[in-house]
Amino acid sequence: MIDFAKSGGLVPAIAQDADTGQVLMLAWMNREAYDETLRTRRACYFSRSRNKLWRKGEESGHVQEVREVYVDCDADTILLKVKQVGGAACHEGYPSCFFRRVEGDGLTVVGERVFDPKAVYKK
Amino acid sequence: MIDFAKSGGLVPAIAQDADTGQVLMLAWMNREAYDETLRTRRACYFSRSRNKLWRKGEESGHVQEVREVYVDCDADTILLKVKQVGGAACHEGYPSCFFRRVEGDGLTVVGERVFDPKAVYKK
Repeated sequence: MIDFAKSGGLVPAIAQDADTGQVLMLAWMNREAYDETLRTRRACYFSRSRNKLWRKGEESGHVQEVREVYVDCDADTILLKVKQVGGAACHEGYPSCFFRRVEGDGLTVVGERVFDPKAVYKK
Repeated sequence: MIDFAKSGGLVPAIAQDADTGQVLMLAWMNREAYDETLRTRRACYFSRSRNKLWRKGEESGHVQEVREVYVDCDADTILLKVKQVGGAACHEGYPSCFFRRVEGDGLTVVGERVFDPKAVYKK
């Protein structure tokens, strides 16, 4: 159903807040992550940096409960409508990873932090 | 500002309707496409299949007027808030490319066609 072959096994997956419509983040899925997401109804991605499955929220507790899954016309991008537990999808503590707006030659922070990353990720 | 090097020169760009919040499509940008988008305030992508700049709407007239541009925490994904001229982002005539929802083992069409692709793309 999804064309994983096209992009070397990984397709982009957009997570959107099911209630507010806010775009929360973009991550990647391989077939295994996609299958697990459908089965568990919790967002599971594939981390390109760690090269393994990434069960979103497994460390922070900020899981994404998946309400609906959409596929685009080319079947090579996934859209998840989710409930973001904890209110923040971004590891920097913002509701959305897109918390910076391009303005002129710079970036302006427009989001407000929901949590302090240092307190949540005790590394 | 954008980390184009990370993914071989291309980063995913999400287009979201500025008014309704609907996620319209995902495409790709190289630095040139990104620069042109900022300069012209019209979405310009890079077509992976045609291997060249893709000025969205250049054939159909359904351009995307760019209202705001966001960058994610890793600076490797772009979010455009746009006004979609013509009301349909998808070449298949739907407002959004994500017009199919995963239900059970299949896909259900949930969008309604705004235009007939055959009438718009006279090929």
